[in-house]
Amino acid sequence: MKQFFYYNWQVREEWFEWAKQVSAEDLLKQRVGGFNNILHTLLHIVVVEFDWINDLLGGEVIEFQLEDYQTIDDVINLHQHWHPMIRNFVENWTDNLSDKQLVIEEGKRVFSYGEVMKHVIVHEIHHIGQLSIWARELGLSPVQANYIGRGLS
Amino acid sequence: MKQFFYYNWQVREEWFEWAKQVSAEDLLKQRVGGFNNILHTLLHIVVVEFDWINDLLGGEVIEFQLEDYQTIDDVINLHQHWHPMIRNFVENWTDNLSDKQLVIEEGKRVFSYGEVMKHVIVHEIHHIGQLSIWARELGLSPVQANYIGRGLS
Repeated sequence: MKQFFYYNWQVREEWFEWAKQVSAEDLLKQRVGGFNNILHTLLHIVVVEFDWINDLLGGEVIEFQLEDYQTIDDVINLHQHWHPMIRNFVENWTDNLSDKQLVIEEGKRVFSYGEVMKHVIVHEIHHIGQLSIWARELGLSPVQANYIGRGLS
Repeated sequence: MKQFFYYNWQVREEWFEWAKQVSAEDLLKQRVGGFNNILHTLLHIVVVEFDWINDLLGGEVIEFQLEDYQTIDDVINLHQHWHPMIRNFVENWTDNLSDKQLVIEEGKRVFSYGEVMKHVIVHEIHHIGQLSIWARELGLSPVQANYIGRGLS
């Protein structure tokens, strides 16, 4: 489980670096699918990971305004703000947590912790695939998505 | 590990069904990024999964001509042809295989079995993200990509 998070975080950091070469206009340009544009798709990845891990940790819901995030540095800062807590949770993950139940929305939705962790992993990879198309539309090479060759086990 | 494969196979089957509503022309229309068009991106997912699992099983390299695959049924048939072998390998996966070494290209490339399995998982999810953009470009809803809500643990 952990190795998939390490993969996602490596790739995410590389997309943050990639985004620095792109104008704010292109990052926010309305696109078809995903989370509407490159910047807010990266933001969405950061927010969804936080929301779920925060749920698993029993934290309070965080108020969030999309329009507060207009530059890649805004997104990077939010990522860096939340990342230590998330990393700590992932580093301490053990598979015997998988069957623990998360109950949200006043009992209306119940998930296992293992299911949530896999959902978060898949969610990021899926959206990164979308970014790769938009990079090509800009005439740029996307970040390399291979899992192999990254020093991960 | 297995659950991610089950996720990928569910999603893949749903994309196969999705593709049946799309004309051969639209499935083969040249697009930016991915594996050039919808049909060959689906084919690429099937082929890459087979190639790696076949490597892990020590099988012979399979000769393969892209131009032999012109309809979604061609891709589905190939998937169905290889799937029992792949499913059998995945079903019998145990984590103590993770550190076993795969040596290919006359010793030039060495990977652990666990690394290869994760690479295959990530590879499919990434390309499915690309398909979701192309679906929207066609004015169609993409297949739901959520891991949660699929009855997977």
